[in-house]
Amino acid sequence: MKDKLPLLTPDMALARVKDRAAPWGSGYYAMYSSVWGGIVTEPWLMMVPADDHVVHRGDGVFESAKCVDGVVYRFEAHLDRLKHSAGSIWLELPLGREGLRQIVAAVIRAGGRRTCSLRIIVSRGPGGFTANPFECAGPEVYVIAYRLKTPSPESYTRGIKVATTRVPIKPGAFANIKSCNYLPNVLVLREALLKGADYGLTLDEEGMLAEGAMESLALVTDQGKLLLPPADRVLPGITSARVKELAPALVGEVLTGIAIAKFGPDDVTRAREVLLLGTSIDVLPVTRFDGRPVADGRPGPAARALLDLVRQDIRQGPVLVPPED
Amino acid sequence: MKDKLPLLTPDMALARVKDRAAPWGSGYYAMYSSVWGGIVTEPWLMMVPADDHVVHRGDGVFESAKCVDGVVYRFEAHLDRLKHSAGSIWLELPLGREGLRQIVAAVIRAGGRRTCSLRIIVSRGPGGFTANPFECAGPEVYVIAYRLKTPSPESYTRGIKVATTRVPIKPGAFANIKSCNYLPNVLVLREALLKGADYGLTLDEEGMLAEGAMESLALVTDQGKLLLPPADRVLPGITSARVKELAPALVGEVLTGIAIAKFGPDDVTRAREVLLLGTSIDVLPVTRFDGRPVADGRPGPAARALLDLVRQDIRQGPVLVPPED
Repeated sequence: MKDKLPLLTPDMALARVKDRAAPWGSGYYAMYSSVWGGIVTEPWLMMVPADDHVVHRGDGVFESAKCVDGVVYRFEAHLDRLKHSAGSIWLELPLGREGLRQIVAAVIRAGGRRTCSLRIIVSRGPGGFTANPFECAGPEVYVIAYRLKTPSPESYTRGIKVATTRVPIKPGAFANIKSCNYLPNVLVLREALLKGADYGLTLDEEGMLAEGAMESLALVTDQGKLLLPPADRVLPGITSARVKELAPALVGEVLTGIAIAKFGPDDVTRAREVLLLGTSIDVLPVTRFDGRPVADGRPGPAARALLDLVRQDIRQGPVLVPPED
Repeated sequence: MKDKLPLLTPDMALARVKDRAAPWGSGYYAMYSSVWGGIVTEPWLMMVPADDHVVHRGDGVFESAKCVDGVVYRFEAHLDRLKHSAGSIWLELPLGREGLRQIVAAVIRAGGRRTCSLRIIVSRGPGGFTANPFECAGPEVYVIAYRLKTPSPESYTRGIKVATTRVPIKPGAFANIKSCNYLPNVLVLREALLKGADYGLTLDEEGMLAEGAMESLALVTDQGKLLLPPADRVLPGITSARVKELAPALVGEVLTGIAIAKFGPDDVTRAREVLLLGTSIDVLPVTRFDGRPVADGRPGPAARALLDLVRQDIRQGPVLVPPED
């Protein structure tokens, strides 16, 4: 065993990381790190200091956004939520809004793909291995552009399966922030996948439906009303908030109204449609809920109409990275 | 701004990380990473892949142990708890117990200090930026040896101040595992420090005292009985469990008995002593609780006697790294 644990010089260590070049790394386009104050494009260099408290405590916040043809969809809303999340754990957003905007644009450019996923992490920063946030020199920012994965076309035409899980909802304010303490979300998704579903859902303390691991939930009642859960026990969803703004255009057509209201598994049995909303999925029709069909088991017209509105909205968004750039 | 965001070649990026060499890094002795299958001693090389799910989800578990003169105190208990934590999030402990033992020994040797702190992290591993644990190629292990920080001598002779905090306790099984979702613990410590206390405490759902950010709690009643809270809503403390085994030697002297029982802030007002127990602190006397003195405001005999027992126990522990090695 001793022989298998060599003491590595920097050159040896880096050569090993390089050699190990993970096959999945082909989907990583570019990464900005404030630790080195620049952008790298080699996947093996995409690293963070082990003593950054985001590594050993999950002490950081993040946003997942997507860029489609140079448009970072709802970018300002993502920056708003990032600021809110950071503030909730008394973490100052470094670099300012304009600084973050420019970094994101530069990372997309460096990655060479105007359509990509974006991860923005603001961490407590390096400084030691305790839990004490005051030992850190200051926050760090990591921005990564990587391959955009979207659901299969069949997910939209046939609908997807969701399963409720037994993972407890996050307590208090932790439910409202996008922190790097996402183990509950991991376990929600894991449980659902093992149950044969595509996405998992959490229930709140009263047994009402809360949210997906990474998605918001919506329901169309048997009366045609679109229900969106209030953001008290869930993360305020960015696509969800936008759907609330866009949906009035559909009232009188596929919807009869829109309301912010909680709903539970019982309401699902009477629902006309159930939807999942999120950055990477836009609007997905849920056709099976805990093994049973939703309504007639086929995607409904509200899901389709809302998806069209969101996709149109993406195309109309302000372009952050023009093609000629 | 564009000029400030250079596209870095690997050499440039690594030179920047090296140049940035953080002053606090002087306390980092050595790090093993299964990513490169070896040990490095340069602090700037102590990095983890950004796509390891421990970075962006906190999807990993850890242990903090200490090595005193070559003795890793309660090492087997730490490995037991690491295995339990890992299993609780369906993470397989790689390398086996003996493998982990040998890695820890090799890291201590490479660090050149037989007295140090140890951090062992088992992560979900790299593989992408989703929450899906199944996208990862497999778990990684990181072991870091760094400078042991212990409380000041005055902490033992004068006692320390604790404050209860409003940070909600972790729900369900999350309270019993040492995962890298430690943001609640971070915020407990932060709130307490800002209140002028040295350590922070959480309360459980019934308002009973639960634990510190990184410490277990114990109380000596006015009758002289040592109370240790049950591990149902808290992390099973390793020092706490050992104190339970060692304390019977003190019954008839400074203690009248030992019991596993919950206690609340009201019990503190009648207590003879309050103690904090933990790996880095051993046994600390709490002399101020939420701004009020505990008993007469001076450290009591049980704290002192238990500290002596634990320190003696450390010296008697099996030596993992002999001096000549």
